[in-house]
Amino acid sequence: MKKVAIGIDIGGTNTAIGVVNREGDVLVDQCIPTPKHGNIDLYIQDLTLSIRELMKSVKLLNEKSEVIGIGIGAPNANYYTGTIEHAPNLSFKGIVHFVDLLKIQFPDMKVMAITNDANAAAIGEMIYGGARGMRNFVVFTLGTGVGSGIVVNGDLVYGHDGFAGECGHMMLIPDGRVCGCGGVGHLEAYCSAPGMKRTAFELLAKYHATDSLLASRCYNELDSKFIYEAALKGDKVAQEVFALTGKWLGQGLADTVHHLSPEAIFLFGGPLAAGDYILNPTKESMEQHLLPVFKNKIKILPSKLKLGDAAIVGASALAFNEFEKMK
Amino acid sequence: MKKVAIGIDIGGTNTAIGVVNREGDVLVDQCIPTPKHGNIDLYIQDLTLSIRELMKSVKLLNEKSEVIGIGIGAPNANYYTGTIEHAPNLSFKGIVHFVDLLKIQFPDMKVMAITNDANAAAIGEMIYGGARGMRNFVVFTLGTGVGSGIVVNGDLVYGHDGFAGECGHMMLIPDGRVCGCGGVGHLEAYCSAPGMKRTAFELLAKYHATDSLLASRCYNELDSKFIYEAALKGDKVAQEVFALTGKWLGQGLADTVHHLSPEAIFLFGGPLAAGDYILNPTKESMEQHLLPVFKNKIKILPSKLKLGDAAIVGASALAFNEFEKMK
Repeated sequence: MKKVAIGIDIGGTNTAIGVVNREGDVLVDQCIPTPKHGNIDLYIQDLTLSIRELMKSVKLLNEKSEVIGIGIGAPNANYYTGTIEHAPNLSFKGIVHFVDLLKIQFPDMKVMAITNDANAAAIGEMIYGGARGMRNFVVFTLGTGVGSGIVVNGDLVYGHDGFAGECGHMMLIPDGRVCGCGGVGHLEAYCSAPGMKRTAFELLAKYHATDSLLASRCYNELDSKFIYEAALKGDKVAQEVFALTGKWLGQGLADTVHHLSPEAIFLFGGPLAAGDYILNPTKESMEQHLLPVFKNKIKILPSKLKLGDAAIVGASALAFNEFEKMK
Repeated sequence: MKKVAIGIDIGGTNTAIGVVNREGDVLVDQCIPTPKHGNIDLYIQDLTLSIRELMKSVKLLNEKSEVIGIGIGAPNANYYTGTIEHAPNLSFKGIVHFVDLLKIQFPDMKVMAITNDANAAAIGEMIYGGARGMRNFVVFTLGTGVGSGIVVNGDLVYGHDGFAGECGHMMLIPDGRVCGCGGVGHLEAYCSAPGMKRTAFELLAKYHATDSLLASRCYNELDSKFIYEAALKGDKVAQEVFALTGKWLGQGLADTVHHLSPEAIFLFGGPLAAGDYILNPTKESMEQHLLPVFKNKIKILPSKLKLGDAAIVGASALAFNEFEKMK
């Protein structure tokens, strides 16, 4: 019997649901809006309908598949308690006992677990991606924010309360940029996609770079993709954005290595499309900041998960991982 | 049969050896010089003699005691390989297969393990100290340097190569003070005992503080104890040294929390004699730097290990921990 898992990715706007096999292929998927009405019971009903539909269509594809469980990735999710707690971008307020509510709909499901999207990405990397066989590694997700998932001795690190792995909020530059969390000088304020835009505008101002390709876009229209394209065309400001982002990211990754000495650090997200433009300065800066005992030992690798379906795939990996731990 | 363990602490000058019971009491102990001759075989012979003598005297004290193992704390020690690697303060050069060499002398010893002193302190805290019952915590040792030992899910974190837990070398202030490791701006350069002295001299210079009690001591004669005594007498510069040390340490601890979300962080070492003078500003600063989800949750506690025999006791805890994992 072919084993499959349901992966659910709850975003601020949409909820993506997919059925994923043990190789990490999405067999079928669906998308429903994440509601703005704040009524969790209605949302659980919609979600249940979607899941049942997908389970049916998988049965049509392959009669002999067995759904081993449901994994969920959501902002502010707590693996220990199965809750989503005070998520600022969701309409459900306070503490939502998400896993308990969904279990009522699927009482026979052996495995049901929730975690945040960066942790799900780390488990996805371990189950399907470049971290297969690794027991100590870290994943950094570079997007609107910077998330991270830490694996030590083959297990995800949740900390004492379920919220470990907030490496995006490590201090990079005291009294530096204001971070989305309200703090100051955090890695996220420099190395997220918006962080790169902030760097671009600082550099435009610094050089009064009227001839830069970036000077033709207003603040609300510039994104990391445009910066990358400008860098490819030889734009000096755009190239310096990547050099600086890598310098800062490498400094932060060195702190993570000094804590955990992982075998590898995986980078995931939109800015990674720039490949060596971001990887090379990151590696160089990390090496420069490492204690001698760690030098030339820790790999920095692009994630092997596909950007498009990584969230569903990561969530499904959580289910496979829980299922395999039960054995 | 009462179980006891041998704890060995290898320092640059002396090697302390003790027999410790499961409650963490040192029953008998001895000290031999750590040789300067670089001949590891001679040193192993001396150490073996000492261990045998101590085992005999324990037998005299309590006929029914059983030695369950030997734990060793040493600089640059690697738990995975049982080696001491390129320790700058020891005369043994290169990679010394310490555990293998000692095992030849004690072939029947069920447990023999080595780690660095900060990791040993963390295991000591877990087995005998304030971390009993905790599964996620971190120990920072403030001394000539700043070391750390990390426990996740009840296990010490060694990382992929055995060298995890070098939190003393996280970046605190980019382009800041030169660290003992050759790096720049590391926590250790600010929050170790010599770091406090450096702060004192910076403040003397900043304020031209000719009336400070600290102004009467030359650089090579000032230590953290003198600074503490001056602070108690109301010396403003000395008090600011503690305030700044706590501010910096709290900033660093927040980064550790953002990685690991431990239940508690234990502080160990000479500067902790100052009690609330160091604890209060550290707590305040850490709270200020934490993400909201971690605020008012993470305890900062002074270590419950006694400063004098903590190194032996920590090393013996490593032996008890390995022994108990075998069950």
